[in-house]
Amino acid sequence: MSQAQFDVVGIGNAIVDVIAQADDAFLSKNSLNKGLMTLIDAARADELYGRMGPGREVSGGSCANTMAGIAALGGKAAYIGKVRDDQLGQVFRHDIRAAGVAFDSAPATDGPPTARCLILVTSDAQRTMNTFLGACVNLGPEDVPEALIASASITYMEGYLWDRPKAKEAFVRAAKLAHGAKRRVSLTLSDPFCVDRHRDSFRTLVKDHVDILFANEAEIASLYQVNDFDQAVKQVRQECEIAVVTRGADGSVILKGGEMHKVAAAPVAKVVDTTGAGDLYAAGFLQALTAGHELKRCGQVASLAAAEAISHYGARPETDLKKLVKEKLG
Amino acid sequence: MSQAQFDVVGIGNAIVDVIAQADDAFLSKNSLNKGLMTLIDAARADELYGRMGPGREVSGGSCANTMAGIAALGGKAAYIGKVRDDQLGQVFRHDIRAAGVAFDSAPATDGPPTARCLILVTSDAQRTMNTFLGACVNLGPEDVPEALIASASITYMEGYLWDRPKAKEAFVRAAKLAHGAKRRVSLTLSDPFCVDRHRDSFRTLVKDHVDILFANEAEIASLYQVNDFDQAVKQVRQECEIAVVTRGADGSVILKGGEMHKVAAAPVAKVVDTTGAGDLYAAGFLQALTAGHELKRCGQVASLAAAEAISHYGARPETDLKKLVKEKLG
Repeated sequence: MSQAQFDVVGIGNAIVDVIAQADDAFLSKNSLNKGLMTLIDAARADELYGRMGPGREVSGGSCANTMAGIAALGGKAAYIGKVRDDQLGQVFRHDIRAAGVAFDSAPATDGPPTARCLILVTSDAQRTMNTFLGACVNLGPEDVPEALIASASITYMEGYLWDRPKAKEAFVRAAKLAHGAKRRVSLTLSDPFCVDRHRDSFRTLVKDHVDILFANEAEIASLYQVNDFDQAVKQVRQECEIAVVTRGADGSVILKGGEMHKVAAAPVAKVVDTTGAGDLYAAGFLQALTAGHELKRCGQVASLAAAEAISHYGARPETDLKKLVKEKLG
Repeated sequence: MSQAQFDVVGIGNAIVDVIAQADDAFLSKNSLNKGLMTLIDAARADELYGRMGPGREVSGGSCANTMAGIAALGGKAAYIGKVRDDQLGQVFRHDIRAAGVAFDSAPATDGPPTARCLILVTSDAQRTMNTFLGACVNLGPEDVPEALIASASITYMEGYLWDRPKAKEAFVRAAKLAHGAKRRVSLTLSDPFCVDRHRDSFRTLVKDHVDILFANEAEIASLYQVNDFDQAVKQVRQECEIAVVTRGADGSVILKGGEMHKVAAAPVAKVVDTTGAGDLYAAGFLQALTAGHELKRCGQVASLAAAEAISHYGARPETDLKKLVKEKLG
């Protein structure tokens, strides 16, 4: 196995976030599921956008946020995802490259526009996401370059990909290529309802293809259909080399074989917008892991990166994460 | 004169801001004029965007920011400006309407894309603006509806319009229509270099058409080519019914005939980005004025709105300005 050119290559839905403030009345009036991600079609996206307050556009996409975080922490990251050749596609491309992430996926030249996620942030800092997948529906196995996957220590993918059959094929192809090149495969379960929609195939996936799994409590409970955290832990230990379960303000738990590491959440002066907390947690963990750190420290770096993400609107890092880690962890 | 349907109708360059953090080294390497607005062409915009860090897109445009501020303060505002029928044009249209401003200008269906302003914000909160005017070059007198101008107590325009001959025609048409309908005309000088570019015609304009003038110290000094603030004040008093000169952290001065009111700047916990300070000052002043308040209070409302704008990235209000004014001024 040759020296990896990238620490992590990520595959995900390439999305521009449109973030607006809203109150609970707006959410209930528009039947929005607070704190969750809901897929919407073009007509619903237009309708909802028309009702939303003034927005700010910031590049997003769960896995893309993670790659931006890895780059901000000093890791070498690449990204695979599908935008269209439109203005929001240019914004996405500019932002991820400007963040230091390699991104060479060809844009779609026809079909739906670049994906957007209409995010309503309430005063309790919860984000409610409504995703119009747009051009992401065209991501397929042909977009996964063998050489790129082979050149990265870890191939990381988001569970959201499972919502589209072609993206699922891309995922499986990437996982096989990675293992063929003796690299590792990592997955984040993304969202409890995403797990609900695809439980059986996620279980097979986790068992057969995933070395490093990220999930929050709701997601892992949904995956194994258990209410008891300890039971979920017992099961996931047997199936993945490393499993990381995040618990919001209660920190996170890292499992590897018989090992278990508990990591406290990093303090945040004011939580503004929880968008990207999980994405940046994964960024910190994977960057520290590929840099050769112990699991405990991986969790600590992860917690710091997540804390930075929730202290401002949008999911991409806004402060110097490398410096932050150095200051806090040495 | 019938009851006005709008308090203020604004005419300006319809622009989406692309805001990124930068350091002084970036500014000097790219020959950028710190704190000022520079017009750039499409090629330069592409080049500079390619070099900038990750951005956030927020609707902007000096006069459009002012109209959004007036609406946020409870005033009735309308806007005239030119976008293209592209994604950023949709963003601009959505945001200004969602802010409560009437906006019915037809988008251009060909020609350059919606205007953008590449804004580099340094850690001292200064903003350096690079404007690609795009579709704004197509704004002309045919875009100024007579009935709309006649229906607003004040027609407000930005000096930046002076950079394009057709927009200048639109301006003069609007000023004449407003006066014909016994309404008032207001102008902000926008930028000292904008004044430098058009000094003679600005002087004629101010003398012949402007009832309420907004300027900062550098702009008014440039207009009258004097270094002495008192001299500038003396001259502007004779030419406009009301003149308002802003002095950054030193507050502002309001002049009307023999009256002079000094207003302190409102305190700000942390200045993040000075983009929009002048725009929101004008918003507060015009909203309070059309609501029938005395000049002193107009300046106080203006200072509060400006302080809110500089406490976050982007120029559009992010907090409830109406509530803020009520809390602070009763």
